[in-house]
Amino acid sequence: MQVFSYEQLYRFTQDVFLAMGCSKTDATTAAEVLLSADLRGIDSHGVARLSGYVRLWQAQRINATPTIRIIHETPSTAVIDGDAGLGLVVAPFAMQVAIDKAKQVGTGWVSVQNSNHFGIAGYHAMMALQQDMIGMAMTNASALVAPTFSVERMLGTNPIAVAVPAGTEPPFVADMATTTAANGKLEILQRKQAEAPLGWVQDENGQPSTDANILRKKGALLPLGSDREHGSHKGYALGSIVDIFSAVLSGASYGPWAPPFPAYVPMPENMPGKGLGHFFGAMRVDAFRPADEFKQHMDQWIKRFRQAQPAPEQDRVLIPGDPEREIEAERRTAGIPLLDPVVEDLKQTGMLFNMKGL
Amino acid sequence: MQVFSYEQLYRFTQDVFLAMGCSKTDATTAAEVLLSADLRGIDSHGVARLSGYVRLWQAQRINATPTIRIIHETPSTAVIDGDAGLGLVVAPFAMQVAIDKAKQVGTGWVSVQNSNHFGIAGYHAMMALQQDMIGMAMTNASALVAPTFSVERMLGTNPIAVAVPAGTEPPFVADMATTTAANGKLEILQRKQAEAPLGWVQDENGQPSTDANILRKKGALLPLGSDREHGSHKGYALGSIVDIFSAVLSGASYGPWAPPFPAYVPMPENMPGKGLGHFFGAMRVDAFRPADEFKQHMDQWIKRFRQAQPAPEQDRVLIPGDPEREIEAERRTAGIPLLDPVVEDLKQTGMLFNMKGL
Repeated sequence: MQVFSYEQLYRFTQDVFLAMGCSKTDATTAAEVLLSADLRGIDSHGVARLSGYVRLWQAQRINATPTIRIIHETPSTAVIDGDAGLGLVVAPFAMQVAIDKAKQVGTGWVSVQNSNHFGIAGYHAMMALQQDMIGMAMTNASALVAPTFSVERMLGTNPIAVAVPAGTEPPFVADMATTTAANGKLEILQRKQAEAPLGWVQDENGQPSTDANILRKKGALLPLGSDREHGSHKGYALGSIVDIFSAVLSGASYGPWAPPFPAYVPMPENMPGKGLGHFFGAMRVDAFRPADEFKQHMDQWIKRFRQAQPAPEQDRVLIPGDPEREIEAERRTAGIPLLDPVVEDLKQTGMLFNMKGL
Repeated sequence: MQVFSYEQLYRFTQDVFLAMGCSKTDATTAAEVLLSADLRGIDSHGVARLSGYVRLWQAQRINATPTIRIIHETPSTAVIDGDAGLGLVVAPFAMQVAIDKAKQVGTGWVSVQNSNHFGIAGYHAMMALQQDMIGMAMTNASALVAPTFSVERMLGTNPIAVAVPAGTEPPFVADMATTTAANGKLEILQRKQAEAPLGWVQDENGQPSTDANILRKKGALLPLGSDREHGSHKGYALGSIVDIFSAVLSGASYGPWAPPFPAYVPMPENMPGKGLGHFFGAMRVDAFRPADEFKQHMDQWIKRFRQAQPAPEQDRVLIPGDPEREIEAERRTAGIPLLDPVVEDLKQTGMLFNMKGL
């Protein structure tokens, strides 16, 4: 384990994107979005994935100089073609379009085709907060999840993020995979050589498994709810809704045809659309009630839920977004810890571009 | 168990609402919405609840002749005051406003205050389908659910429904409580004097319980995910989002202050808003891509998921909405079975209004 300052990782990441041929503006945006994951403690989605993006670029599945454009729109909606650009750049562009539409007609809804992985959904949803808007972001992803009653991987971990502004309280920020556990949680167990709790994954026959490496053995992640008796059909429905809004609505590739993140995995045959898809929403709070009034009530909501009686063995009840914000406050000053294999991977990536290392 | 035709129950239900003083139009709408639950097999939300609505009316918590009106709007949004009307009437009114906005600017989003229970969320979401729109409906409800790490009931079962039109395939219709199991599932176990699976409820100390009557002993329903290790913080976040969109955005009463459905339960003190809240959305499919193209891809999506390889002991993989549609097809011809206590309850309700019985 080594600890790096945010600035150190930021400069390095930006330099890698510049070396790929991204514009200064895009490299800055992409570095900020990617590192927001490390800051917020979602280590699986941050610099640990930088080399993965580079390999996709090497495989010509990512275009470093995309022409991102609106291909269809109405006053409250747009469809954007990401031109195979970095999702880290396409997504903030699309979210800004949603915000601009909301300024005009109250809400804005943007579906995106021909994109790539966009980092953490929470970053994009939170862009709405400074405008006194509720923000939403979701994306489809490589198929790793079996629907209820199935053994076939049909959906990605398809996250949903919703950010709601408050007044004196910090905002409400939910950012969650629609599976019982995100893939990053499994990766942590793999590194520790630990077992997964029952209910996270199943084996190739659909039997319960605790093998954290089961995805390499034709196993699958389970939808939120784990099994039918505990509501996995609801997690399956949520993941499906994300897939439909992100990819069927936009013209991206959906379900088992979603393009894989690892560059060594061949692209699916007969893809029904272009690239990955995302979906963004922005709702102006004052399109419903005066912003100050809304924020006062959100403060009251948050305070009341913080005061909910904790279970005997628990200290406190959390508000969605609390853990990530606390980690961010700590890492902004104390730095960001990286596992040795991640540091080594970053060094290799730097060498590829003749950079001087981290 | 007795079986009644849809028409028989429809006339009876309509007559009860007329006897309460509803207009002919409202009584017709309310009967149709309420009975859509019985048709679709969600027996807990149908005529079994008719006497509950009557008791709320007797307690003057439901206004049979409401003036439902828009109190704030933008081109894509509206806030509606339900004037304490039947949610069964307020909700279709509000969903129609969302649909009308979507016709104008691509999407429509409506938050509702001062309403009551609205039947099944799926009915309202499905109103969008015949317009080639995606429909959404959600509502907050009486607090029965403890957040992760808490023993206090802070949220209702707060359902989310999303309906997506297809072409030759039937539509995709998800309609789900944001808890592991809906309260209606517990009620079924109570009648059978059976135990609940672990993970559905907890006792007053936050310990796992299989007691289907635990809600009468200060226990709580659990958010989708059941416990922290299996993602209950995600179910808690989803239920919270429904509460915020339905009630904080509209000016309804939220969280533990949501008005209770049973008329004998006193109203909470210091309510921060008016009545129950709902939230509706309508998105015109052709605000994103041509409707025919979208529906062809939805057909492909649905067919591909139906063909997903089933687990060895399973026949087939279901699409959200399949089970309810199959039950509806059966009950429209074979009739709707009602448990004896429900029949007795309906007879009592009829006698209250000097009706001739079912």
